[in-house]
Amino acid sequence: MPKFNKITIIGVGLIGGSIGLAIKKKHLAKEVVGVFRRASTLKKALRYKAVDKGTMSIEDGVRGADIIILATPVSLIPVVARNVIRRAGKGAIIIDVGSTKQWIVDKIEGMLKRRRSSVFFVGSHPMAGSEHASVEFARSDLLKSSPCIVTKTAKTNMEALSKIVGFWKALGAKVGVMTPTAHDRSVSAISHLPHIVAFSLAGATPVQELKYAAEGFKDTTRIALSDPNLWADIFASNKREIAKAGRAFEKYYKKIIKAIVKGRYLELVKLLEKARKNRSLFKYVGV
Amino acid sequence: MPKFNKITIIGVGLIGGSIGLAIKKKHLAKEVVGVFRRASTLKKALRYKAVDKGTMSIEDGVRGADIIILATPVSLIPVVARNVIRRAGKGAIIIDVGSTKQWIVDKIEGMLKRRRSSVFFVGSHPMAGSEHASVEFARSDLLKSSPCIVTKTAKTNMEALSKIVGFWKALGAKVGVMTPTAHDRSVSAISHLPHIVAFSLAGATPVQELKYAAEGFKDTTRIALSDPNLWADIFASNKREIAKAGRAFEKYYKKIIKAIVKGRYLELVKLLEKARKNRSLFKYVGV
Repeated sequence: MPKFNKITIIGVGLIGGSIGLAIKKKHLAKEVVGVFRRASTLKKALRYKAVDKGTMSIEDGVRGADIIILATPVSLIPVVARNVIRRAGKGAIIIDVGSTKQWIVDKIEGMLKRRRSSVFFVGSHPMAGSEHASVEFARSDLLKSSPCIVTKTAKTNMEALSKIVGFWKALGAKVGVMTPTAHDRSVSAISHLPHIVAFSLAGATPVQELKYAAEGFKDTTRIALSDPNLWADIFASNKREIAKAGRAFEKYYKKIIKAIVKGRYLELVKLLEKARKNRSLFKYVGV
Repeated sequence: MPKFNKITIIGVGLIGGSIGLAIKKKHLAKEVVGVFRRASTLKKALRYKAVDKGTMSIEDGVRGADIIILATPVSLIPVVARNVIRRAGKGAIIIDVGSTKQWIVDKIEGMLKRRRSSVFFVGSHPMAGSEHASVEFARSDLLKSSPCIVTKTAKTNMEALSKIVGFWKALGAKVGVMTPTAHDRSVSAISHLPHIVAFSLAGATPVQELKYAAEGFKDTTRIALSDPNLWADIFASNKREIAKAGRAFEKYYKKIIKAIVKGRYLELVKLLEKARKNRSLFKYVGV
């Protein structure tokens, strides 16, 4: 028997769509409803069977839902949350899947406090994805074995938190619980900065040289194919931590360049060895 | 009928071994001989059938060879070349597979000039590889569809050049001919700098954050698993071009960081869009 009656996904792109496919595959809910802004994406999501039903009305979508998943671009999440909170039924749990947490969690918890609501909110960040953004790239196994961070603050309802941790685990994710601040610090280093660096490498490469590029270039710059608007949004919502992570990166990079230019061979090898060791400690089991 | 009588590979690691396997698969030579410094790697290369025969003597290895391939780490190539030139038979063509060309080509052409030799040299750089360096990772198809740059200078013998271009094409590589300077400029942007950036990212990431890292981190830092000594060698032999490519990268990176920190959203999107467009122009058909 499905654990949930109705789960609603607002914004059915790569992540929202993959969550929909996974819920359906695992029979976690009797009904998965998608809420759309455009009729064309509604039709597409139904064609890919990412949701059971689609609507363009938040009111219809949210009615009777146990879990409401905000899966729009980061900058829209608080706006959508405001609409959803007003319409969500008693006991509903709202979660988001945004790539930054402090800014989003602060905003939404502020709204709930003012409303003295019986609606709950738990911030989430399933750390899966690719350089593609739309529903045709959605896969039911996208979240399998991926890390998923769930945030906990002084205002978090513990029962709701536990339900949401269970929800992500049921989809196959490896769940970690932390504060929004700790999350933002973590992703600045392991996700946001690598994206900035990949964009910088691709942006600075003279196009006439591309024809001789091979595997190394291909991998280091793959995520520079990501959606510029989505990522500008994410970067803008995590400025301070990105600036901090950026300073650590620049320092290391400058040490390497200096060791090369000054011909300090042993120092150079040490820097590369430390980097290689760090990378070898990373044991990712993705799909 | 094989085109060549004997081809000798000095240094049978990932690249040397893959070339050996490919020559054998394509029946390009009657005999492929490997020259080794250690008995243990000789045994390993024979076990993986990367060469038909192994020896620890350059003299034996080089005797009667039509093509002699220098596939040692970059810093050893000129030293090995000096030994090989002295022992190579009349008409033999020496090629190297080093990742930088100006430094190597200058050194070896200098040796040949002094010797007024009937031995020829053509610089090469098959742009294939992985983060692994040893013969057990060698594959006969490693060079297939990969770019391979062959260098041409005022001193290059045209017949030898044409034979070597044919040799790499027979192994499946997409051959480009250019000057050593143009080569070094090109690889500084598309290979050396991406390696430095990947090492810097991996080196600067706090290890406690690694457990939440996913696909983006995995790909941008894969080549930070490369051999530190091999790459310190390569970087040291291409200082000036690396410094230049580095400045272009830093400029782009700083523009992105500044746009984020100052909240210049439109400028940020433009920088990311240009980067994405550059990356989308890269059409690599590897294996």
